[in-house]
Amino acid sequence: MRERHIAACLITGAANRRYISGFRGSSGALLVTDEYAILFTDARYRLRVGLEAPLFELREFSAVTPLFQVFAATVIELGLRQVAFEAAQISFAGHAALVRAFKEQASSERNMPELLPTEGLVESLREVKDASELAVLCHAIELTDTAIEAVIPQLSPDLTEKQVAWLLEAEMRKCGADGLAFPIIVAAGPNGASPHALPGDNRLGTGRPIIIDMGAVLDGYHADLTRTIILGDPDERFREVYQTVLAAQQHAIANLRAGLTCDEADALAREVISAAGFGDNFGHGLGHGVGLEIHEGPSLRRKPACKDAEMPSLRVGNIVSVEPGIYLEGWGGVRIEDLVMIHEDGCEVLSQASKLL
Amino acid sequence: MRERHIAACLITGAANRRYISGFRGSSGALLVTDEYAILFTDARYRLRVGLEAPLFELREFSAVTPLFQVFAATVIELGLRQVAFEAAQISFAGHAALVRAFKEQASSERNMPELLPTEGLVESLREVKDASELAVLCHAIELTDTAIEAVIPQLSPDLTEKQVAWLLEAEMRKCGADGLAFPIIVAAGPNGASPHALPGDNRLGTGRPIIIDMGAVLDGYHADLTRTIILGDPDERFREVYQTVLAAQQHAIANLRAGLTCDEADALAREVISAAGFGDNFGHGLGHGVGLEIHEGPSLRRKPACKDAEMPSLRVGNIVSVEPGIYLEGWGGVRIEDLVMIHEDGCEVLSQASKLL
Repeated sequence: MRERHIAACLITGAANRRYISGFRGSSGALLVTDEYAILFTDARYRLRVGLEAPLFELREFSAVTPLFQVFAATVIELGLRQVAFEAAQISFAGHAALVRAFKEQASSERNMPELLPTEGLVESLREVKDASELAVLCHAIELTDTAIEAVIPQLSPDLTEKQVAWLLEAEMRKCGADGLAFPIIVAAGPNGASPHALPGDNRLGTGRPIIIDMGAVLDGYHADLTRTIILGDPDERFREVYQTVLAAQQHAIANLRAGLTCDEADALAREVISAAGFGDNFGHGLGHGVGLEIHEGPSLRRKPACKDAEMPSLRVGNIVSVEPGIYLEGWGGVRIEDLVMIHEDGCEVLSQASKLL
Repeated sequence: MRERHIAACLITGAANRRYISGFRGSSGALLVTDEYAILFTDARYRLRVGLEAPLFELREFSAVTPLFQVFAATVIELGLRQVAFEAAQISFAGHAALVRAFKEQASSERNMPELLPTEGLVESLREVKDASELAVLCHAIELTDTAIEAVIPQLSPDLTEKQVAWLLEAEMRKCGADGLAFPIIVAAGPNGASPHALPGDNRLGTGRPIIIDMGAVLDGYHADLTRTIILGDPDERFREVYQTVLAAQQHAIANLRAGLTCDEADALAREVISAAGFGDNFGHGLGHGVGLEIHEGPSLRRKPACKDAEMPSLRVGNIVSVEPGIYLEGWGGVRIEDLVMIHEDGCEVLSQASKLL
């Protein structure tokens, strides 16, 4: 906040709120200044504030006195002249309601506190994981690895995608996961040509690629892992596509390090896939940060075509997915994904699940 | 759109997008006019558009050409002079990016399409369920009822809240649920004094209230059910609190009908609870709509204190929760929740799970 010359900040993003205060409720906001740390929430969460966010003072809002009214009254009471707000974490209508609340409560135009948009203030801190976050994430990753390795030997061609998704979910929960990082993807054959397929009543079958994309949540932190497997014998095409994706992933992992820009990171895998003739079949970015959200910064992807686009660089302590894929309509897809931690001069692979077919 | 004099609308809210187009992907937007129905999404969802939203024309965006650029180019290409946007479904920063994209692409200030905020356009339609939505919701409600009735006889004082949450989840999935409407709440004894408690390693124990709040998701539609139970013998206090909450719920259900304002609906239960001396211990609204989101309109709650607050009225076809509760710090809580459908002259209870202790 000091670097950005921000004296007071309203924090409305759920993951940002949790990161700064510890509070896990689904409704509320923080006001943070040099002197004050205030958590606004409603009566449903009253008793949880003391347990989860003991350093914050609680102020309650309700249907009768909504958040923005309580917030505006607090800002005026504390005599704050400027308040930054999270422009990417408040809706256009929410901002308008905030302005109205200030107008209603300020005694004159001169007393109106100034509202300043800011972006990425807390998100940028969240991108670099500290030791306690790393420990939880590693545990979530380990659960995910253990679950997929327990389930793969149980697979048979007659199982449906939905049945396999449930086996994986139950195994993760049995291993101690709090829940799913996202709905599990199990996509067999042509269904796998959609990178984000929905599991259905489609059977696994033999001789065709099966994409499994899954992750455990533990204490709010999200793991993410993809393996592509096959039941029965792989044919030539599968071997070619699989080897290309694996080579692209290995090349990226061998070269990722702090200081690379996010588009340079993406290009590491994209060049391998393009050289093999599959450039048009890798329609998403190489990876994304994980943490309190399943998709957070940094985002490893191509540079926008618009002018002045600046790409951020990887930093020591980022934990990102490395997940190249090739998708062929009518046939299916292959994606291989691991989570890695970025170091000064390289990266460390955190996922341990086998890539043997 | 005609009633609101809107010629073209950008739809960015995920549930609104699904409701209007059928598309279930997690990334994208719609442009709807009298003549055009266009779905913007990225390559990950390319193959799903034809299956899920066959009436929409697909236009792809990517990291290289982001959504707002493709959208602005489309609006200018189609010669649209005004486009409404969902003010509650786009961030302040997203709106700013949209304005920038229009400025970059319009050949002159005069060519700049006008952006008009609108609120509740699709949400208002979603509040009234049609027959096919009712059928899916009733199925989700039935699954939820079946699951809780199967699990309650298995409960014993030594089980932890987390273990019970898992039994309920597994049972709902076994019954055919696609997933959870929200993380299941199991709160025993003092933990139940938090209306939104997190299940922990706390054991159920005997002689104390146990709140169970859960719901299945089926085909995108959310059920919601709460029962409060007790293992062993209820004491006097439990009987008094339970009977008060039950009487409040029954009074509300007996009187809910189309045309009541949302605060009048809320007052039906609140008056019973206040008359019994527990007015300060019912710190949330009486209920909320359910559908493609677990919390949607109408919201049954007290009227905001600010001037000009207008409360909407219940309409035929609303499906809302009726969930009064009493929460006592140090002791626990009692909440009873059913989903009901609003009719012209009354309401119909959809939940069937027993309220016997």
